[in-house]
Amino acid sequence: MGEFELIERFFKRNQPPVLANQARAAINSIAFGIGDDCALLQPAPGMQLAISTDMLVEGRHFFADVDPESLGHKALAVNLSDLAAMGAEPLACTLALALPPERARDEAWLGAFARGLFALADEHGCALIGGDTTAGPLNLCITVFGQLPAGQALRRDGARAGDDVWVSGTLGDARLALGALRGEWPLPPDVLDAARQRLERPTPRLALGLALRGIASAAADVSDGLTGDLGHILQASGVGAVLDFEDASFLIAVRADLTSADGLFDSAFLLKTALTGGDDYELVFTAPPTARSAVQAASERAATPVTRIGRIEAAPGLYLADADGRTAPLAARAFDHFA
Amino acid sequence: MGEFELIERFFKRNQPPVLANQARAAINSIAFGIGDDCALLQPAPGMQLAISTDMLVEGRHFFADVDPESLGHKALAVNLSDLAAMGAEPLACTLALALPPERARDEAWLGAFARGLFALADEHGCALIGGDTTAGPLNLCITVFGQLPAGQALRRDGARAGDDVWVSGTLGDARLALGALRGEWPLPPDVLDAARQRLERPTPRLALGLALRGIASAAADVSDGLTGDLGHILQASGVGAVLDFEDASFLIAVRADLTSADGLFDSAFLLKTALTGGDDYELVFTAPPTARSAVQAASERAATPVTRIGRIEAAPGLYLADADGRTAPLAARAFDHFA
Repeated sequence: MGEFELIERFFKRNQPPVLANQARAAINSIAFGIGDDCALLQPAPGMQLAISTDMLVEGRHFFADVDPESLGHKALAVNLSDLAAMGAEPLACTLALALPPERARDEAWLGAFARGLFALADEHGCALIGGDTTAGPLNLCITVFGQLPAGQALRRDGARAGDDVWVSGTLGDARLALGALRGEWPLPPDVLDAARQRLERPTPRLALGLALRGIASAAADVSDGLTGDLGHILQASGVGAVLDFEDASFLIAVRADLTSADGLFDSAFLLKTALTGGDDYELVFTAPPTARSAVQAASERAATPVTRIGRIEAAPGLYLADADGRTAPLAARAFDHFA
Repeated sequence: MGEFELIERFFKRNQPPVLANQARAAINSIAFGIGDDCALLQPAPGMQLAISTDMLVEGRHFFADVDPESLGHKALAVNLSDLAAMGAEPLACTLALALPPERARDEAWLGAFARGLFALADEHGCALIGGDTTAGPLNLCITVFGQLPAGQALRRDGARAGDDVWVSGTLGDARLALGALRGEWPLPPDVLDAARQRLERPTPRLALGLALRGIASAAADVSDGLTGDLGHILQASGVGAVLDFEDASFLIAVRADLTSADGLFDSAFLLKTALTGGDDYELVFTAPPTARSAVQAASERAATPVTRIGRIEAAPGLYLADADGRTAPLAARAFDHFA
């Protein structure tokens, strides 16, 4: 099986993808897809194109023996998560794939990878419009294209002193699974299964990102850990924040299961895991206190739970408040590939 | 030096790039660049976005010891060449970079790579608007964005029986250099220097692609070898072609030098190298015979020589005609990474 047959068999489809929302005219946007020097996209009048690219490297972002269907899902999910954090709706993506020769011959692996990728793509009306295939150490580079009305992007630089800080879903589960798979700590098998779903099949919060347009003052997705990604918002906006968890138990979905296996982790460890773990693909965002009911309504429309976890301060720095209102500094460091 | 400092120091620039052609309003098109979850692009009204992605892998597309400034040039050039083949003018690009830790620490290497990339980007008004940086085996994945008036793309599927086949510049020099560097054959040092320029610093034929809008019936860039890339046009258009070189001496720029070092190569070898060598980044295109003077005028406007090398036939297949008009079949095979 050569390069062109591989593309033809696994990645080229004659029909347009099933569209989650015909109203956005995505079919018209994709003027021309796979099979020429370039793909052609035409955003609707008045719309901007949101573009993001993420590269996944074997042994760095995923284990060599990861289920290929999950890998196809995750490679696209981490890119769609960037569109979600901008408030954009997906249109299309390109896939550049470096494959070791043994993978290029492994039809079961390629078929499962394509299945996982297309299942998520179809769910969000995101067409694969082009790419590149080459021999090399396993590397997946996806670039996604979304659209949004000009001027309505959820940027990182809009947080203002007095804004609430919110986060969607739960945080820390992916890091717990990663540690267990790496042998850093044990997890009971059923707890690992649940946490591993979060690590290997993250859910991009696209509906929430769309619902927050015009409501959130700033947003980012939590890929490198909450403190790091919130730190990007603080830096871009020139502000600080105090996190103030009245109840931190929401942070880790599998926490209830861990309590029954008590003695495994103390609460300080779980809090640190939730705050710095990464690979969660939730949204962290800010909004003025006057928008609290609008945020809750957006959360319900998007069927995505959100929790208020702090407030933006004029003075730079990121702090954690305890039950007595005393604050301690948090290191606002994101995961760094070269640190 | 961490991931974020690396981006800040080598790849983030505060000024918009020097624009080769202000009239195309590229500055307005780039609504928002590096530093958020997504970049934002807004093509001018009535314009389509042309998108292409190319991945370069160390040891596969370039030697580990290649001059990093040339590598930065080439990584972007091969992508811009796809825009040229579509008749699009460059707007922007993203860069995803997997770097081994020793490269991530090598400031001289990174600085030279960025210098080569930005020199070519600035020449064509192509802004770097985003990307990704990760640890891993050296891999460069660039996605380029260009724009063109809706409906005016130079596609591969427009060649018609009776059309002329044209090619720009010269073919085969890059392959001669590659073979010499790999030790497949010797080349005199001055000949190698000239040929190596073609391999390591290819010139994307953007001006010619733009000038051929509305004139060429089909076009592709010659990245995998003339017979392979012309083969893509033939397949997409459902036609065949006969190549008919009255004078094949134009094919290889360094041929004159090789003649003086006679005995190194026979003419059959040189013809094969020119027809199948690859890495040339010239344009192969078709146009009706009535457009011959328009093609010549486009060639002069773009300051890029073109040569008529054959004609499109209704019957499928690719043939080479000899001086007596007898034809022999040519294998229309492109370079295949997994063959």
